Amino acid sequence: MMIASDSLYQQYSDHMRRVADLRYAAAVLQWDQETYMPQKGAGARARQLATLSETAHEWATAAAFEKLVYELQQRGDLNAVQQRNIALSYDELVRRKKLSAAFVRRSSEAVSRAFQSWIAARKANDFKLFQSSLSELVGLKAEEADLLGYEGHPYNALIYEYERSASVKSLDALFGALMPALQQLIDAVRQQPEPDTSFLQQNYPKEQQWKWGMYLVKELGFDLEAGRQDLSEHPFTTNFSAKDVRITTRIDENDLANMTWSCIHEVGHALYEQGLPNEEYGLPSGEYASLSIHESQSRLWENCVGRSLVFWQHYLPELKRFFPEQLKEVDPERFFRGINKVEPSLIRTEADELTYHSHVYIRYVIEKELISRELPVKEVAARWNELYRDHLGVTVKDDVTGCLQDVHWSHGSFGYFPTYSLGSLYAAQFWHQAQQVMPALNSQLNNVQLAGLLKWLRTEIHAKGRTLETEALCREVTGEGLDSRFFVGYIRQKFMLP
Amino acid sequence: MMIASDSLYQQYSDHMRRVADLRYAAAVLQWDQETYMPQKGAGARARQLATLSETAHEWATAAAFEKLVYELQQRGDLNAVQQRNIALSYDELVRRKKLSAAFVRRSSEAVSRAFQSWIAARKANDFKLFQSSLSELVGLKAEEADLLGYEGHPYNALIYEYERSASVKSLDALFGALMPALQQLIDAVRQQPEPDTSFLQQNYPKEQQWKWGMYLVKELGFDLEAGRQDLSEHPFTTNFSAKDVRITTRIDENDLANMTWSCIHEVGHALYEQGLPNEEYGLPSGEYASLSIHESQSRLWENCVGRSLVFWQHYLPELKRFFPEQLKEVDPERFFRGINKVEPSLIRTEADELTYHSHVYIRYVIEKELISRELPVKEVAARWNELYRDHLGVTVKDDVTGCLQDVHWSHGSFGYFPTYSLGSLYAAQFWHQAQQVMPALNSQLNNVQLAGLLKWLRTEIHAKGRTLETEALCREVTGEGLDSRFFVGYIRQKFMLP
Repeated sequence: MMIASDSLYQQYSDHMRRVADLRYAAAVLQWDQETYMPQKGAGARARQLATLSETAHEWATAAAFEKLVYELQQRGDLNAVQQRNIALSYDELVRRKKLSAAFVRRSSEAVSRAFQSWIAARKANDFKLFQSSLSELVGLKAEEADLLGYEGHPYNALIYEYERSASVKSLDALFGALMPALQQLIDAVRQQPEPDTSFLQQNYPKEQQWKWGMYLVKELGFDLEAGRQDLSEHPFTTNFSAKDVRITTRIDENDLANMTWSCIHEVGHALYEQGLPNEEYGLPSGEYASLSIHESQSRLWENCVGRSLVFWQHYLPELKRFFPEQLKEVDPERFFRGINKVEPSLIRTEADELTYHSHVYIRYVIEKELISRELPVKEVAARWNELYRDHLGVTVKDDVTGCLQDVHWSHGSFGYFPTYSLGSLYAAQFWHQAQQVMPALNSQLNNVQLAGLLKWLRTEIHAKGRTLETEALCREVTGEGLDSRFFVGYIRQKFMLP
Repeated sequence: MMIASDSLYQQYSDHMRRVADLRYAAAVLQWDQETYMPQKGAGARARQLATLSETAHEWATAAAFEKLVYELQQRGDLNAVQQRNIALSYDELVRRKKLSAAFVRRSSEAVSRAFQSWIAARKANDFKLFQSSLSELVGLKAEEADLLGYEGHPYNALIYEYERSASVKSLDALFGALMPALQQLIDAVRQQPEPDTSFLQQNYPKEQQWKWGMYLVKELGFDLEAGRQDLSEHPFTTNFSAKDVRITTRIDENDLANMTWSCIHEVGHALYEQGLPNEEYGLPSGEYASLSIHESQSRLWENCVGRSLVFWQHYLPELKRFFPEQLKEVDPERFFRGINKVEPSLIRTEADELTYHSHVYIRYVIEKELISRELPVKEVAARWNELYRDHLGVTVKDDVTGCLQDVHWSHGSFGYFPTYSLGSLYAAQFWHQAQQVMPALNSQLNNVQLAGLLKWLRTEIHAKGRTLETEALCREVTGEGLDSRFFVGYIRQKFMLP
């Protein structure tokens, strides 16, 4: 007797949701680790996370589940979403099975240790304290690439984890074309009169910044009954369902920009997560489409919205309620010019929209070299500093503002950074489309327009989960595949370049 | 070939620690649920916790592990601690195997729902909103008692979870003797001039109370690198290893007492957890001896230390640094008398040391009646109010200050309350012993003496983990089994009764 496909698919869903329970539980433990966990808790936390990862891996690759997925793949009577879920799960299974549970446990433990070393190294402002952890992770990642298999460059195996459509070949081509185009734009912008940014670097008390940040995330549509914001060393977004999405920020008392655009950026991620279909919990159809699309959401809000003149025409008066003294003499035009100053700098998360891509490119180059073992880990700081000199013309003074600035490597995330540039390009393309559909966005951005924008994103992108591949989604939303001309056009318009 | 006991014991330890990883992960999710989780996160959290509980249960009762424990039980070459661990694990296994994984999952989900109903019912001040959840839990607990089996009263099966040495018979005898003795003491104390407590009910701003609480927990020896304090609806202590112990408190702006003694109480629990042998992580030898002993630690600090005259002779001047205006005219004697005012009241956690036991007794009676199905759940509020009138002579005005005041039932904890009275009695007996060993405790209590006391508790109680049963531990520390004359003597001395 043949078991009905419905019943098999139900078994599949149940199993997937249980694996998701473990993964989300691990995410709670990680969130806690980066927000509230006391220092000495790190040892036990590492093993707890390792047990969760290892178990999730075992379940995700269990023989009975594998049989179920293979069986469902043969069935002709599944609907399109079900078929897509099964196809993605099949692909995932094939990849996951190449890694042993012991390898997954080892990786998880190494990541926990590495995160602690990264914190310590940052505190001491000394890359050497992170070096041996990084070595271990690079070794594990290179091993992972070998286990997973790849065509061409071993780094491809890792990029695939974050963006299935990207590869060293496609990224080399992308950056190869993008970087010179950006350089032209940068040169053109830097011939304009230098904007004043001094109003951003004043004393902005922490508590007021916190209140401002909370106000801002609410205005942008973040549902605080289905999420929260906390402080952490490095801002991030995580979620434990579409109804529990956590963002974090950090506050620099002498810089308003740091936390303001990190709030907008993370809330962009969070709005996406809160808009995913909660009833598809644990299934691919309930997940984000890809990391590039995730990043397109954060960067659309951060830059296209949050660095636009019309946004600040409405919100600067609100911001002044929080900081009346500091911003007394600043008008929206001056504010807009100040927050869009283009200038090569040291810190990626604080970079302007143009030089930002050089930061990403440098990390991409280093990761490629690390994974292919061309670059020894002990030379990472020197290589970093060299690339910053060559590509951005800036001198790195120390490790905290150099190669220790990002948390990603300490998380074992190699192949992640390129999605930041991809995300910016998708963001500009989606934003262009949104402006076509809702021309009012060009002339006014208060919470009514923002709600309209969010509604459009919810329908066009969020609610679709992972039912489409990155490029297919882009085509469905904008009528064509990714094209960097939208980004270039967006920049030309913002800086009023001919 | 016979496998060496060492190697088998290692396998046993590894497995136990992995089960602990899951249980502690669940504890992190629960801590988050009660401190920071946004409201709408409850649904997914319930299923995540259920998956963790169910999996921990499956692992803890796995056939291969059972075989291992049975095998180790036959070995004659284990040391005493190893033997004890195996014996406790065996006992646990026999009990756990009586519950199916599905039953454990069902219970976990019911508890998550019940906790949310309890929060909602408290908000609405309406027991009826909690009633159906409570019904479900009582049903599950009665079923659990049947599955576990018992002699005499079904409630015995549940008490055993928290205090192996207690039963309805022993507790009826204990309360039967204790309650009249307490009534005599209460009558005698209430013939003394009425203490002034007005200085406690003034405006004590939240932020200052928070700072004072943090100061206090540090003074008492709480290691903030291995723990933290947060706010929650109901104060509690939890831990994810001996190196990550979390306490929570709540603040009433018009009452200094509420948070002050809740901080001391919870830190008493936390000091015990931080003193457990971390190298025994996941094994019985790394756990607390019993809930009565756990409560003895919280109540020793809360009452024997924290409500003593000598403690406040030193700490009142410190407290005044936080609240100079409010406490300007209060001296240590007046303070001491005020914080020890004996008066029947509505709220257990705010009750004095004497009437406290009536609160516990009332819950004990109701739980017995619920589990034996003598008392229908819909009559809980009425029964509660009746017992408060009969035993404390107070009139319950509403559900929040009545039967909705404690979180325990919403956690599915039935059989827990009696350990509060047992803990008070053990506390008095341990405190008596400590005073014998360190007579200075009678005349001075600053952070030097407190550190000495903590050191003694660490050696005598904390470091022993669960290597001894409650009564055996009491005998090892004090030379005799539990005797309520120490509690009576302690009260007589405090209130200078003849």
